[in-house]
Amino acid sequence: MCKTACSMSEPTLPSPASGVFIGPVHHFPVRVYYEDTDVSGIVYHANYLRFMERGRSDMLRVIGIDQRAAIETGQGVYTVADIALRYLRPARLDDDLIVKSSVTQLKNASCKIHQAIWRGDEQLTRAEVTAAFITLDGRPQRQPPAWMAAFQRVLAE
Amino acid sequence: MCKTACSMSEPTLPSPASGVFIGPVHHFPVRVYYEDTDVSGIVYHANYLRFMERGRSDMLRVIGIDQRAAIETGQGVYTVADIALRYLRPARLDDDLIVKSSVTQLKNASCKIHQAIWRGDEQLTRAEVTAAFITLDGRPQRQPPAWMAAFQRVLAE
Amino acid sequence: MCKTACSMSEPTLPSPASGVFIGPVHHFPVRVYYEDTDVSGIVYHANYLRFMERGRSDMLRVIGIDQRAAIETGQGVYTVADIALRYLRPARLDDDLIVKSSVTQLKNASCKIHQAIWRGDEQLTRAEVTAAFITLDGRPQRQPPAWMAAFQRVLAE
Amino acid sequence: MCKTACSMSEPTLPSPASGVFIGPVHHFPVRVYYEDTDVSGIVYHANYLRFMERGRSDMLRVIGIDQRAAIETGQGVYTVADIALRYLRPARLDDDLIVKSSVTQLKNASCKIHQAIWRGDEQLTRAEVTAAFITLDGRPQRQPPAWMAAFQRVLAE
Repeated sequence: MCKTACSMSEPTLPSPASGVFIGPVHHFPVRVYYEDTDVSGIVYHANYLRFMERGRSDMLRVIGIDQRAAIETGQGVYTVADIALRYLRPARLDDDLIVKSSVTQLKNASCKIHQAIWRGDEQLTRAEVTAAFITLDGRPQRQPPAWMAAFQRVLAE
Repeated sequence: MCKTACSMSEPTLPSPASGVFIGPVHHFPVRVYYEDTDVSGIVYHANYLRFMERGRSDMLRVIGIDQRAAIETGQGVYTVADIALRYLRPARLDDDLIVKSSVTQLKNASCKIHQAIWRGDEQLTRAEVTAAFITLDGRPQRQPPAWMAAFQRVLAE
Repeated sequence: MCKTACSMSEPTLPSPASGVFIGPVHHFPVRVYYEDTDVSGIVYHANYLRFMERGRSDMLRVIGIDQRAAIETGQGVYTVADIALRYLRPARLDDDLIVKSSVTQLKNASCKIHQAIWRGDEQLTRAEVTAAFITLDGRPQRQPPAWMAAFQRVLAE
Repeated sequence: MCKTACSMSEPTLPSPASGVFIGPVHHFPVRVYYEDTDVSGIVYHANYLRFMERGRSDMLRVIGIDQRAAIETGQGVYTVADIALRYLRPARLDDDLIVKSSVTQLKNASCKIHQAIWRGDEQLTRAEVTAAFITLDGRPQRQPPAWMAAFQRVLAE
């Protein structure tokens, strides 16, 4: 399609990691860097929550919810109301992981999401998360109808 | 005791935050810095796990368990096996918090710890944590008898 | 003032780490936790910047500048314009460190701060930082006169 | 190779962000998440160092240096000896960034790397980094000849 000269003048820049839905399950890839590990040689336990939040943020992006615009226009923000995690196996430096996320329940002002982190066919960590939609000063509020509809389309039964 | 001249030549250096037991409850102070907050204006949800880990590490230090020596001599390491958190109210930049930790159950290879983060008389977050003692290559193992005895002395009934 | 019985019912809570000036040098204590380390067994290089920022924030607190109020009232915020660091020796889990900070230059819209992290009499890291005062939407602005005066009192010659 | 039916049963998983060389400049993509931002609304200054370390780690991966194997076999580890950063413009939540890295000098036991973070055609941050190769207990050592050769191939003149 394109000769060397053209690829020299306008080479394709690589893109950041982006997730995809496979059925109702959003799949988001993460590579483990030094920043994620600790002196015990494995990923620091709190950092799996960062990986899971990246997965949820990417899921919102994929279904068309713009979190930054929602903050900048004062519309509101999702916040974690509760989370329960089980750590099964540790992740290590350079591991390629997949964060799987499924919306399992949808209410007016919140939703429940099941998340699990996999390395190949080994499950490393899993979590049940309740995310609440709140105003910028912290009061619970209804999710916008368009967002409810977007979640409805990916709701796992 | 000491005159100005002496305090000029050898001033007392401040100490890092250290916790104390009040009955069976370990109290550990934390101040919120920029690094802990996010764009929504409050503490990022995963960072409460960092505060709680500081509380648990300090509790171990206070009852006489030296985690760094245990790693360096190959004795083993505590790892979080599961954690369930509820977020009740957000913490903000410059808040002074207290992490309260109580050992609620003690088994041969693990213990359960109840933790809560308070700002004055407001509870912000609470968690139930199971910490397992493992070898440096990740297999469960019995806690050293002296450590079991140390935990026994602060076990909440 | 208060007898044992009263101190039993209202025990003194521990306080978060706070720094002090010794002459023009602000001293702030930091203890190293798991969160700060990485798989190579030492503190992750970017985390010394977190320690230094805690030192600078505490220095502002001690001289009477309330960063949170400045954000909440829209007055402005300090931002790092440049920083040059040298890493001399690594810090490890459980180390007690002192972050030393001195204001070395004061301009209308910025100041220069020399910082160094010490473990006992070993210098581990040192940095030259330029902090600029900006509006909340990012434009440089003059520091409030009362803040300039506060810095003037601790300026190192 | 594979028909639609088969790709339905075994869909392609997304891959983590990976960088590419365009000439001697390694390009690595980063998206900004909540974890990266702070209460002032922009990326926390220390987190650009995490982005830059991801870029350097990926550059090593692309030229064939396996950091995890080097740690596990006791061969050694790269450490940041010094870094000087300029912050020009802030990054914000959801921004897509490119970390550009060029090896500018190669010595027996260290190398210098120029790095810059771009958002489209705006340069946000740039840094000069010296990375030293050390033993696992922290002494400087020569880089393996094969690694020197790998760096030589991407050395910017």
